[in-house]
Amino acid sequence: MLSATERTRLRRGAHRASTDPADLHAILDAGLVCHLGVVRPDGAPMVVPTGYGRIGDTLYLHGSTGARSLRLEGEVCVTVTHLDGIVLARSAFHHSLNYRSAMIYGVPRKVTDPDERLAALRAITEQLAPGQWDVVRAPTRKELAATLVVALPLTESSVKIRTGPPIDDEDDYSLPIWAGVLPLHTTFGTPHPDPLLPPTTPTPTHITTRPHPSPPT
Amino acid sequence: MLSATERTRLRRGAHRASTDPADLHAILDAGLVCHLGVVRPDGAPMVVPTGYGRIGDTLYLHGSTGARSLRLEGEVCVTVTHLDGIVLARSAFHHSLNYRSAMIYGVPRKVTDPDERLAALRAITEQLAPGQWDVVRAPTRKELAATLVVALPLTESSVKIRTGPPIDDEDDYSLPIWAGVLPLHTTFGTPHPDPLLPPTTPTPTHITTRPHPSPPT
Repeated sequence: MLSATERTRLRRGAHRASTDPADLHAILDAGLVCHLGVVRPDGAPMVVPTGYGRIGDTLYLHGSTGARSLRLEGEVCVTVTHLDGIVLARSAFHHSLNYRSAMIYGVPRKVTDPDERLAALRAITEQLAPGQWDVVRAPTRKELAATLVVALPLTESSVKIRTGPPIDDEDDYSLPIWAGVLPLHTTFGTPHPDPLLPPTTPTPTHITTRPHPSPPT
Repeated sequence: MLSATERTRLRRGAHRASTDPADLHAILDAGLVCHLGVVRPDGAPMVVPTGYGRIGDTLYLHGSTGARSLRLEGEVCVTVTHLDGIVLARSAFHHSLNYRSAMIYGVPRKVTDPDERLAALRAITEQLAPGQWDVVRAPTRKELAATLVVALPLTESSVKIRTGPPIDDEDDYSLPIWAGVLPLHTTFGTPHPDPLLPPTTPTPTHITTRPHPSPPT
């Protein structure tokens, strides 16, 4: 069960909370980017979209050693959100979204062990592009030196999921207003080969047959 | 032109920056949720996905008067991200994403004027569900009292856009490795009527014909 600290115990919409680690893992594994929140030296928050990877109960992030967001000390918040549908209610007030979201708090640990660094970079690459790690050129020593890798335990996490039709006020159900859900789907299109590829280069099947993130149902 | 403060002048990937307000507006207008970053009283950042609306050069956010994220004082960072494709390079290092993202810094102003509050709620509802505001039940006095509305000027913003094929290292172009872009599309599915609707209720055309956020091309 996911821990409920003061920060991750959901106050608003607690009925939408999940404490099942399988839900957390599924949400993370289905994502392409997270939104990483850090506190800048001037005290303001900064939210940047960035790739990530998961190995067991650890989330890995990477960035250039010159990037600000991962060089900062202290706590971060990582949020991954999937939108599944627009919830159209009978009142403006009850409009909503169906979604799955995960939020992870923690202090990232800088990864220095070469094996863990490589495993993390593999996980991050495979999260974005499954099947690519083994077929592309591996990182050089110089590229590795230019890459910062940090690890965030999934210990302090929360998951929120909304599904289903709108929940309207009792009196509103008799109004002659359409209500329901407009589903949202995320799909991959036809791969665009790099114009600099030799024209006969076949597109690998792990790319052409990659399952859609959120296929039409 | 968008202002370039110390925070919004892009350091990494400055060639991907746009200072055209039309790009900022287009990215915001195409979105369904933003990721709102705030700093919690304990000093940690918190990143929450939430709806928003835009009127001119002002972004509006709303929430329950009981929600933590909007009640906090001080600066926020709002980030809106669209993913357009997976960039598959010849090396693991150069894998990337095509995306459009906007980041806005500022101190939100609590909106108290009744007309501005209503206009903001209309903009937020219409952002999520265009055409709905005029056909659904309007907010009651009680609902309005339970809703916090804040305004954030778009003054301190940055926009970052990546398009096109991978940029590989010169030596890697001769490798026999496929490279290119796997496009990502977001589309609406067939509307699911609320099971509690009378069975013959027609689905309004503004819902059935709503343009896809990111249609297949």
